[in-house]
Amino acid sequence: MAARTVRRITLARPVEGVPTLEDFALEERPLPEVQDGQFLARTIFLSCDPGTRSRLSAGASYAAPLKPGDTIDGFGVAQVIESRHKSYAEGDLIACGAGWVDHVLSDGRGFLQKIPDRRAPLSLWIGVLGVPGMTAYFGLRRVAELQDGETVVITSAAGPVGATAGQLAKQRGCKVIGVAGGLTKCGWLVDQCGFDQAIDYKRSKDLAADIAACAPKGVDVLFDNVGAQMIDAVLPLMRRWGRIVVSGQVGEYNADPASLPGLKGLRWFIANRLAMEGIVVFDDLKAFPRAQKEVADLIVADRLRFREERFEGFESLPHAFIGLFDGSAFGRRIVMVGPEPGA
Amino acid sequence: MAARTVRRITLARPVEGVPTLEDFALEERPLPEVQDGQFLARTIFLSCDPGTRSRLSAGASYAAPLKPGDTIDGFGVAQVIESRHKSYAEGDLIACGAGWVDHVLSDGRGFLQKIPDRRAPLSLWIGVLGVPGMTAYFGLRRVAELQDGETVVITSAAGPVGATAGQLAKQRGCKVIGVAGGLTKCGWLVDQCGFDQAIDYKRSKDLAADIAACAPKGVDVLFDNVGAQMIDAVLPLMRRWGRIVVSGQVGEYNADPASLPGLKGLRWFIANRLAMEGIVVFDDLKAFPRAQKEVADLIVADRLRFREERFEGFESLPHAFIGLFDGSAFGRRIVMVGPEPGA
Repeated sequence: MAARTVRRITLARPVEGVPTLEDFALEERPLPEVQDGQFLARTIFLSCDPGTRSRLSAGASYAAPLKPGDTIDGFGVAQVIESRHKSYAEGDLIACGAGWVDHVLSDGRGFLQKIPDRRAPLSLWIGVLGVPGMTAYFGLRRVAELQDGETVVITSAAGPVGATAGQLAKQRGCKVIGVAGGLTKCGWLVDQCGFDQAIDYKRSKDLAADIAACAPKGVDVLFDNVGAQMIDAVLPLMRRWGRIVVSGQVGEYNADPASLPGLKGLRWFIANRLAMEGIVVFDDLKAFPRAQKEVADLIVADRLRFREERFEGFESLPHAFIGLFDGSAFGRRIVMVGPEPGA
Repeated sequence: MAARTVRRITLARPVEGVPTLEDFALEERPLPEVQDGQFLARTIFLSCDPGTRSRLSAGASYAAPLKPGDTIDGFGVAQVIESRHKSYAEGDLIACGAGWVDHVLSDGRGFLQKIPDRRAPLSLWIGVLGVPGMTAYFGLRRVAELQDGETVVITSAAGPVGATAGQLAKQRGCKVIGVAGGLTKCGWLVDQCGFDQAIDYKRSKDLAADIAACAPKGVDVLFDNVGAQMIDAVLPLMRRWGRIVVSGQVGEYNADPASLPGLKGLRWFIANRLAMEGIVVFDDLKAFPRAQKEVADLIVADRLRFREERFEGFESLPHAFIGLFDGSAFGRRIVMVGPEPGA
């Protein structure tokens, strides 16, 4: 039997500005033997997450910055190929947070979940049933405490977090306005996802005015994935007791914090008693299974749309990731690492 | 009997930048007769509130901007001198929000409270027992949900809101760090108010580093009365699930919003699941009496310190107000309009 290896993609150097291919390194090593209490899984799909960018330089993130040589963050769908762990058997399918590796040697700790059924496509377990979808779900439910019939604005709305959030809000009878870049994305949001309106920020001459025209009675919840300028545009439109979910800063991750324009509309927080709160969905892990069942039910019933952009091969991860920041990504970026098992 | 008049101080013109005496006008008119269901009170004390500034220009405030000719906002302590209202009798002492007027003709509506006892100095009903004190109380309790033993940073800490908030937090066994301008204010906060530390922002070369040195384990609650730059200095120090109370923007009221530096540290909201919320204490009116009793008990027991700067005469209101913005004010600014009745 040939010696098995594990390939990892690591940080080559701290990233400055927009990431480039030179910021990443590919490493291959022999796989250690599986020990008692461990299992080995082969990766099938891996994800590219914009939030990962915040860990590639020093500065604020939900976790400590990566050092050169560390494995890049990412979520994976994998299949157990050898197990000496009592809870995992050969053939089990898992979703995990082991990062950009093509084999996962695990003792069962860390972010790890057995995929309970094959009702939904496997890759969705790192998409609308994974961290992006759960961020949408708990951002609306726990952070925004969304109420039926409210008016919701979602930025970066055609991304996996935004599109899921908008559709979940529609399920609650909310009025949903999306902000996205380009008519294709806006059309998809309205035609396929059922958003009430979608605004193309690239064509808008006055984003605040365009949002105001869509929400004449004001905005109850802003689900923001972009950053301060987007929030500033919506703040004056927010109704009393409005909530702002800080879910991501795709417009700011690559910037030097000192150069950012900054949120200027603090006075609206007092004027309208606004509340703004950040979300990291790992705080909601215990509630994932129930939420995932709810979202899977919607998918099976064709009541929740999603888009994927699939890239072929483990080595394509850095390229797929870099493209998240030029506005061209349209849907969850999934890298196919190994063959998908038959259902 | 001489015809009675009412004097009002009104907005002469929308204010640009720092208010000047020319922005205000004094108006005197005959008092109408007291009708059935009305009472007339003479003003004893009036307050100068920094937050009033936000209504003197167009823009975001907790209420619509004032128009030229409108009475300037302010809180007053007054005594009923004539009543045809069933709930108010001659001699009753009230605290009210009638603005800068020397007589109040009221039908009992609006912000109005009968002063229940004379345990505390009368002027405190527009100070630590009034809107500033209640803002401190409910900002900590309702908005921050302060827990015993937490670490709290308070800006504009020598003002009536800040000093009260700090002392209320000390009652809860919290570690309290104040930021204020000048050694005199800082000394008062530590020596008289029991703050653990006070930082003179005028002498500090690196405010964030100085606060960090005082709070090596991080900050749970930031009670901010100043604005974005102050919040930005504290954001990186905030612990997970930290809360920011947006209570005032004394550093920003006079600025053109577009020229403000803006809050740059949005990423900390995600990194540490921070929540920021504005407070307007009128939302808590129903809970005032119980809170006021609690604070009055502290005052009577000499466990809560306060400072007043008293100005003599109704006409001195604009002057006293303007001085709120040059950093020289030290304590609640109270204007004495009429004689205080004997207890």
